[in-house]
Amino acid sequence: MIVVKIGGSEGTDVGAICADVAEQIGKGEKFVIVHGGSKETNALSEALGRPPRFVTSVSGQVSRYTDRATLELFAMAVAGKVNTLLVEALQRRGVNAVGLSGLDGRLLEARRKDTIKIVEEGKTKILRDDFTGKIERVNVALLRLLLDQGYTPVIAPLAISTSNEAVNVDGDRAAATIASALGADTLIIFSNVPGLLRDVADPASLIAEIPRARLEEFAGFAAGRMKKKILGAEEALRGGVKEIRLADGRIAHPLRNALEDRCTVIR
Amino acid sequence: MIVVKIGGSEGTDVGAICADVAEQIGKGEKFVIVHGGSKETNALSEALGRPPRFVTSVSGQVSRYTDRATLELFAMAVAGKVNTLLVEALQRRGVNAVGLSGLDGRLLEARRKDTIKIVEEGKTKILRDDFTGKIERVNVALLRLLLDQGYTPVIAPLAISTSNEAVNVDGDRAAATIASALGADTLIIFSNVPGLLRDVADPASLIAEIPRARLEEFAGFAAGRMKKKILGAEEALRGGVKEIRLADGRIAHPLRNALEDRCTVIR
Repeated sequence: MIVVKIGGSEGTDVGAICADVAEQIGKGEKFVIVHGGSKETNALSEALGRPPRFVTSVSGQVSRYTDRATLELFAMAVAGKVNTLLVEALQRRGVNAVGLSGLDGRLLEARRKDTIKIVEEGKTKILRDDFTGKIERVNVALLRLLLDQGYTPVIAPLAISTSNEAVNVDGDRAAATIASALGADTLIIFSNVPGLLRDVADPASLIAEIPRARLEEFAGFAAGRMKKKILGAEEALRGGVKEIRLADGRIAHPLRNALEDRCTVIR
Repeated sequence: MIVVKIGGSEGTDVGAICADVAEQIGKGEKFVIVHGGSKETNALSEALGRPPRFVTSVSGQVSRYTDRATLELFAMAVAGKVNTLLVEALQRRGVNAVGLSGLDGRLLEARRKDTIKIVEEGKTKILRDDFTGKIERVNVALLRLLLDQGYTPVIAPLAISTSNEAVNVDGDRAAATIASALGADTLIIFSNVPGLLRDVADPASLIAEIPRARLEEFAGFAAGRMKKKILGAEEALRGGVKEIRLADGRIAHPLRNALEDRCTVIR
């Protein structure tokens, strides 16, 4: 079982990843696909004249400020557009994909962070109307029900809170939690860089392998969005996933290359 | 088994319908819910500065002109917003809803109308870039798989064409096709009128019962959107559905009232 996270970042060749997934399924492999949608959400927000707002928590994590109106935009972009087009792209290649969000069948149940402490212009503030959550439970039975019948689940990063509100969750960490819950062997996180780089400006500085015991030491090389991917990798390792591959989604045969170690492998 | 169509029209009390669905599920009934989303699609189109365009076919059917960009808007509004919020509303009432579009697991396979003849300013024109389809096959096994495990499928009116393109389908007719394929006893189509009226301007002119043999004769009373509901009812009857209820979605206990004959019953 392989869990694949397809990012919403610029340059990712979704069609090429889908073609590789179809090839691997033909060889008997099973997949669960988790996607993002930041780019689409930002584009929709801008087009509607409501530019996205990002906040920085006191612990330094950057996340999208998601009030109820933003949550609905997020659902439109992520569950409506990205998920539907990904299912279409997979179906076109013979993969019988089923698109879900974490609300469906309570697939992803999350604790809503009802207050978050943020830092803005040097001051600490408390946000109370944010609909962001941290996944606490995965409905593994629903995924297995679909997988056993030959379907490939494609999951949008929305969850249902314990008080039944739709909430936005981080896609990388959702993929890690799902991989752990399913007992997947491999988690592949695609983005628009070759993997973890020693020097962000130098694609040739790829770190090919990180032994799990030394992940903390290597985490220092992660900047920006890569920080959440490393956090996801840590969570997946703790959850029993054997290997996490941070791979380039822009190249020819992205999945085949990732499986052949042309990426950062953490194990 | 009851198939319920919840319209996207103004005034429909979705929460009240969801509460009634929860009540009936508590009594052992099973449901499949199909929804629309015209209102949300129009609102999103307007907000993005791309007002919706409707075309009239040579046979007099009015439908949304759906080029690829409109299809993506439609997916955002219908599969992204309406479907997600409906699943949330059902989950809130204890119904374990699973949102799907017709692309998921090839739930609804449609023949894309690759050319449609329309009438515009008195002239016949041919549209070639329209992504609208007519459902030809329902993946009943996927619905039963979910229903048997206690899930309630909630279906957005998108389908996958035989050449694997996402297409827009009519929600009322989708509900009728699904009810037929499932061998449902009852199809309830909610809208913002009490049912089929002899006089559109007079809600008291409700036609309480239509024997199936006389449907054609009564169809003449249908105007506007009601025409497609009557078309759906005809298709459902031909498909073996025992009764079709055209009911008011704006009143208290809309579903309970519909089941207690406060609507138009066709059987």
